[in-house]
Amino acid sequence: MIVQLEGQQSIIAALQTRQRKFKVIFVKNSARPETLAELFVEAERRAIPIKYISAQEMENLAQGKTHGGVIALCSTKHPNTFEDLEKNFRQSTTAPLLLLLEGVEDAQHLGYILRSAEALGANAVLLKKHLWNFDETAVTRASSGAFERLPLVRFSDASEVAQLERFGIKLWGCIANAKRTIYEIDLTEPVVLAVGGEKRGLSGKLREHCDGFVKIPMTAEGASSLSLTHAACLLLGEAARQRYSTPKSEIRKSKSESNSKNE
Amino acid sequence: MIVQLEGQQSIIAALQTRQRKFKVIFVKNSARPETLAELFVEAERRAIPIKYISAQEMENLAQGKTHGGVIALCSTKHPNTFEDLEKNFRQSTTAPLLLLLEGVEDAQHLGYILRSAEALGANAVLLKKHLWNFDETAVTRASSGAFERLPLVRFSDASEVAQLERFGIKLWGCIANAKRTIYEIDLTEPVVLAVGGEKRGLSGKLREHCDGFVKIPMTAEGASSLSLTHAACLLLGEAARQRYSTPKSEIRKSKSESNSKNE
Repeated sequence: MIVQLEGQQSIIAALQTRQRKFKVIFVKNSARPETLAELFVEAERRAIPIKYISAQEMENLAQGKTHGGVIALCSTKHPNTFEDLEKNFRQSTTAPLLLLLEGVEDAQHLGYILRSAEALGANAVLLKKHLWNFDETAVTRASSGAFERLPLVRFSDASEVAQLERFGIKLWGCIANAKRTIYEIDLTEPVVLAVGGEKRGLSGKLREHCDGFVKIPMTAEGASSLSLTHAACLLLGEAARQRYSTPKSEIRKSKSESNSKNE
Repeated sequence: MIVQLEGQQSIIAALQTRQRKFKVIFVKNSARPETLAELFVEAERRAIPIKYISAQEMENLAQGKTHGGVIALCSTKHPNTFEDLEKNFRQSTTAPLLLLLEGVEDAQHLGYILRSAEALGANAVLLKKHLWNFDETAVTRASSGAFERLPLVRFSDASEVAQLERFGIKLWGCIANAKRTIYEIDLTEPVVLAVGGEKRGLSGKLREHCDGFVKIPMTAEGASSLSLTHAACLLLGEAARQRYSTPKSEIRKSKSESNSKNE
């Protein structure tokens, strides 16, 4: 299957991570070559043909508006496997942090959450099998290259996720009526944070395998719940906060911590 | 100007908050009346005509796919003013928490961030004037009713925002190269959290009025930055965490706090 990648950021990320075969890279005639230097170097290194096309041809080809004058045709990126994760964990200097999604709004939101997951230090994102029919061009574009760099594992059954136990990884299910909040659990440990679909929440099968349940407490009464991707973003954000704060806790004295000194 | 609202959640929120004049509510012929009871009660109370249309007519009318068989035509919701905020602060039981946006990806993302802002306890969102030309139908739909309930203030100049000083509100600018992290500042105080556009960041004019600058620390090297709405979501999430933790800090002993006991 041939996939279209749009925008320099996605294409350079794909060239650098070497998980796709490139057929051709289209560059708009009027693009300034000096802004594309990094792309040209990578393309040259891998002997990928560059084809110059007119602005009109590029518009006809593009699916989105943020291509910036560069579109590539290449092979699809295959899902990562649990075996890939094993290698990833071995190379990682921090305790594994994984996000599991049983639902997602659309391709663009998936791209955004991959971008945040990478920025906030997640090792990988686990994605339920039925979510895998996404528009790869849209995901890639929204992810700013994170789709290329971050392992994305397809799982078909909750029992597959349970095998992560042998790495000492805890599976936390995020559900609205959990008793514990995300602030109360230790996210510096190896963890998978599992988020269900927006309508039905976490599936029964996945709940069976969870080590515990947590919620993001809602501050405002009468407010709607958080959107799925924002909830996932906040979960990862709390893990990032705890992980950021921990190694430096012996020397840091900040205002925000002064409320919890009575431990 | 006539605006189209789609979906029961948005329409009920708009009926309840009474900031719009309704012309008509279209209901799909085949919709089950028992699922629309709340809507019917509100419409009856305000003497708004209900018109039944066919599934095909509804599809022709709808802009999105999540209308669930209900579409309303009503007046636009006017922006809130700084005077409205004053009233809002007086009625609020917590220290003001405001989000300021100088940029936003699109209408849907604005809707999502309004939804999160409301859920995380923000009093209002301040939106730069030039962002005000959004598709109100799309914002409303994505916000799950938050667009109706949450004050949304249009400001044209940074000096307008500076007038919030007289309420003792601090203006924090979120910029990538700030020295302090969001974990180090006291967000239980009255605060405005300001986020710039994704490309150019916070404007120079707004920076002049900031009391200080903060960043969300990035965990992963080589990763792209966070998207604008995810960054805004994490800022509000950190404020919500601090505000949630503070009143109960004298009695709560959680794992996650045990690292900061050496204050």
